[in-house]
Amino acid sequence: MEAQLLESFLLNVINFQTLIATKTARIVEATRGRAVLEFGLRRAQGIDGALSAARASFIGGTVGTSNTFAGKIFGIPVNGTMAHSWIMAFKSELESFKKYAELYPETTILLVDTYDTLKKGIPCSIKVLKKLKKQGIKRFGIRLDSGDLEYLSKQGRRMLDKAGLKEAKIVVSNELNEYIIDELMNKDAPIDFFGVGTHLVTAQGDPSLSGVFKLVAKKENGKYIPSIKVSNNPEKTTNPHVKNVARLYNRQFMIGDLIFLEKEKKSLKKRIDTLKPLAFHHPEYDYQSLKVDKYCRTKFLLNNIVCNGKLKYKFPSLKEIQQKTRRNLKKLHPSYKRLLNPHIYKVSITKKLMDLKLSMIKQYQ
Amino acid sequence: MEAQLLESFLLNVINFQTLIATKTARIVEATRGRAVLEFGLRRAQGIDGALSAARASFIGGTVGTSNTFAGKIFGIPVNGTMAHSWIMAFKSELESFKKYAELYPETTILLVDTYDTLKKGIPCSIKVLKKLKKQGIKRFGIRLDSGDLEYLSKQGRRMLDKAGLKEAKIVVSNELNEYIIDELMNKDAPIDFFGVGTHLVTAQGDPSLSGVFKLVAKKENGKYIPSIKVSNNPEKTTNPHVKNVARLYNRQFMIGDLIFLEKEKKSLKKRIDTLKPLAFHHPEYDYQSLKVDKYCRTKFLLNNIVCNGKLKYKFPSLKEIQQKTRRNLKKLHPSYKRLLNPHIYKVSITKKLMDLKLSMIKQYQ
Repeated sequence: MEAQLLESFLLNVINFQTLIATKTARIVEATRGRAVLEFGLRRAQGIDGALSAARASFIGGTVGTSNTFAGKIFGIPVNGTMAHSWIMAFKSELESFKKYAELYPETTILLVDTYDTLKKGIPCSIKVLKKLKKQGIKRFGIRLDSGDLEYLSKQGRRMLDKAGLKEAKIVVSNELNEYIIDELMNKDAPIDFFGVGTHLVTAQGDPSLSGVFKLVAKKENGKYIPSIKVSNNPEKTTNPHVKNVARLYNRQFMIGDLIFLEKEKKSLKKRIDTLKPLAFHHPEYDYQSLKVDKYCRTKFLLNNIVCNGKLKYKFPSLKEIQQKTRRNLKKLHPSYKRLLNPHIYKVSITKKLMDLKLSMIKQYQ
Repeated sequence: MEAQLLESFLLNVINFQTLIATKTARIVEATRGRAVLEFGLRRAQGIDGALSAARASFIGGTVGTSNTFAGKIFGIPVNGTMAHSWIMAFKSELESFKKYAELYPETTILLVDTYDTLKKGIPCSIKVLKKLKKQGIKRFGIRLDSGDLEYLSKQGRRMLDKAGLKEAKIVVSNELNEYIIDELMNKDAPIDFFGVGTHLVTAQGDPSLSGVFKLVAKKENGKYIPSIKVSNNPEKTTNPHVKNVARLYNRQFMIGDLIFLEKEKKSLKKRIDTLKPLAFHHPEYDYQSLKVDKYCRTKFLLNNIVCNGKLKYKFPSLKEIQQKTRRNLKKLHPSYKRLLNPHIYKVSITKKLMDLKLSMIKQYQ
């Protein structure tokens, strides 16, 4: 009954935030070490959707958000640049830049594409940034929000460098996603920051993660009785019973995850401690199996959060979650992180779990 | 300054809810008169995202939501069927169906695909629904959530009819979207209700609506001075100045919308009142224009919501918004509602607005 009450809430939180953290990790990966800012408030699902997206994208690797409310609630660094309306509210572009630099000297990123990027915007910005530099300020830059970002960033870099503003950063935005960023990086576009909004908060291209809740066992007289959902769609047939997951590592990377029956844990631990080979069975195709023997470390992944109504878990800070995610991503072989046609990470089941599953399916046939 | 404060919130609400209402209208259109239920809570962006989606999809034409919180807050009818976990929590499928019908006799829709739809699920459901029928209950049915929905709905209909349960409804779900629904309807699948979740709340396929805020004028000494944002991307160049919109209708349908300068309103109204031809200019390609003369009715679309800090608008109820949307959709010619390659509705600008735009662009070149 408790699971039923929590189901929708937990799925809502886990599905969406996992999706966005993953999408962000893809985007960050594409930048090859540049910084990503989350700019998605305008396109998110409600204020709460925007907040969740800001939180999840920080976990996935952004360095900041333009959502000031997310900054306040989650302590995510707040970044952003000026709006076009700021510039349009003044008589001239130059005047608007000057005023902004006066008010926010430490965070001046000038938006240079309101009227004509190369002929007006960047020349005006150079005047203002030079003045900031004279004042001893070191962090400033420009933002490009339209046009050909490769061409404009290269021209802009040249103009800034020529004006003695090598430290000026270039921020770009405008419907970016991991593929556009990857292409810009392939062409060595001199970009320092990517502001990503729409595609990040909507996970455009694949905007949902299909996590579901299924009953796997019920407790009767203190004993767990396994249950199964059978389906014509094989991937919808569930893995029955109370389970746990072990992750195997070699010296550098994760090898795969093995789902096993909780009651196998003791015997499995024994095998693992002596680094004996483990059998991986495909969760849907029962004729596929694999021996894994070259692992040197394992980790059990499940944590009990609440036991018998008592909280058993110390929640990490958002920063700690971000760091853990970064460490985990480093342990994932680059072939799993390819943007197109990535290698598929192995998540397998044990022989015992497979046998239970097959026997229960048979029972319902 | 006020616009800047409201910008992100308004865009967030308007972009997302317009998107979802539109997606829903497409889905409802595809059903050719069947009913659509919103089932998206698990895949929405946070609880607020799910609530917004439920509200917007009701506006777009759903008849209910599975989100009980949305039911409570917005008064949307709450619908839904049982979960697989309900069935799996019992010793047998039949027992679970019986118990459900006992508890919810007036809203019994039995989920028949937990173990084997045709051999177990539907035969069990027939036993229970027959009993409900004997009790004088008239609203009941089954839900299919996996497998081939055309085949299963046709087989299911036959089995129900044969058992004397012609009034039993068939509900289907499982990653539905407007294209799948259209295809099912093309094949005359005997389906009464469609439960649509993921694709509806994420607007899968096109998950963002790109509404933006741009400054169009600023008030100086009581007078409006127009402003413009020029861009290398022509569609990003704004239409300057304070404007309004007129919608033209012929006897049956909308013809198009004409955006004009607010100061043209008087002269435009004169032309309109005498049904004189109106010139439509393409907002981006200045060589394209069109005379519209066969209109018989017009409507000005902008409403002042807040004037000088005072609310000037009586907000309609959600039901009224839904009804208005339905009326509007009826006024839209079917060619605009095609799922693939629809006709594009004309939104044009007046000569005066085009001249102002071109002269301001020239000024910045």
